[in-house]
Amino acid sequence: MRIAELSRRSGVPVPTIKYYLREGLLPAGELTSPNQARYADAHLHRLRLVRAMVELGGLSIAAVREVLGALDDPEKSLHKAMGTISAAVAPADLGGEDEVAHEQVEAFLRRQGWVCRPTSYAYKALVGVLATAREVGHERFADLLDGYADAARPLAEADLGYVLGAGSEDEALEAVVVGTVLGDAAMAAVRALARRELSGTRQPNDP
Amino acid sequence: MRIAELSRRSGVPVPTIKYYLREGLLPAGELTSPNQARYADAHLHRLRLVRAMVELGGLSIAAVREVLGALDDPEKSLHKAMGTISAAVAPADLGGEDEVAHEQVEAFLRRQGWVCRPTSYAYKALVGVLATAREVGHERFADLLDGYADAARPLAEADLGYVLGAGSEDEALEAVVVGTVLGDAAMAAVRALARRELSGTRQPNDP
Repeated sequence: MRIAELSRRSGVPVPTIKYYLREGLLPAGELTSPNQARYADAHLHRLRLVRAMVELGGLSIAAVREVLGALDDPEKSLHKAMGTISAAVAPADLGGEDEVAHEQVEAFLRRQGWVCRPTSYAYKALVGVLATAREVGHERFADLLDGYADAARPLAEADLGYVLGAGSEDEALEAVVVGTVLGDAAMAAVRALARRELSGTRQPNDP
Repeated sequence: MRIAELSRRSGVPVPTIKYYLREGLLPAGELTSPNQARYADAHLHRLRLVRAMVELGGLSIAAVREVLGALDDPEKSLHKAMGTISAAVAPADLGGEDEVAHEQVEAFLRRQGWVCRPTSYAYKALVGVLATAREVGHERFADLLDGYADAARPLAEADLGYVLGAGSEDEALEAVVVGTVLGDAAMAAVRALARRELSGTRQPNDP
């Protein structure tokens, strides 16, 4: 297909597609003349994946490039890809120097029996969240973490099951991307629905 | 304090603070001369809250303005503020016209016994996620939703408990903001930790 059809079918404007091509997020099409290229279904699929990461996951171009690198890596492994992808979707490091937040995360990990290096992105992301909570005067936010862990265990099982349920290794890796980016967005939406349901029940006179 | 101290203590650069002042996200300081203003601890607190929403929550300036409007609304109610805040943190509507995704959300709500108008942001956010999943060839992603609901119920209870545990009504409203913005980021981080733990256990030979 031509770039115009690629744009129509993906919902991504032509200038944005050209930008992705320049940035290497999308492989070049097959040149049919010096100024025209033809794109395959694989391009459409990759473009939709990029769009999901950018628009739903809020990933930067650099983060998308990292995730695609993990997908295209011939030496790829599921565990490693999960790490790369989780790192790419994590918010910027905000609380590197907050000692109390570090101790809160360490204590939480000990209580859960989880092992995690302080250099890993998930550790740093959690320190960032707790440091921010402390900054805005919500030190007690850290008390919620064990409840989060209880909720997260079955979700992580489902995440892994989803990935292992994929047909091929390539599909499994893509399922990691989809599960992480869409999974976090879906969890936020479902949690808001549950909260809405509950708060409507508890405060029936509220609009 | 002067704007330089406000910047130092909040970690927000002076030009950004001036931008927030122009955009009305931060109330003006008390003028001490035509070119100098003095800021109070309340400014520092509000500035840290804005920073948390922008940097951790990834909220746009318009979304932050909406949330602050809910916090400052004299007619405010917890339930209404929760809706405003959840709407502000939701990703852009991506799947408005996907009929199958709509039906998947309807079926999910029926199974859970939840009531939610299709115009509500959480409903639309979920349709957007499922539409995107379908676009990238992951229709089976919708099968995960009931597991998400099981995880979300106790989280929503904890969210509401956190809000009701606040000292004053103003603090409760702020706890809604903190709980939503930090809560989603914390859940994503804890879930990644749980996934890491599990995938490391299942694939011991992986790096």
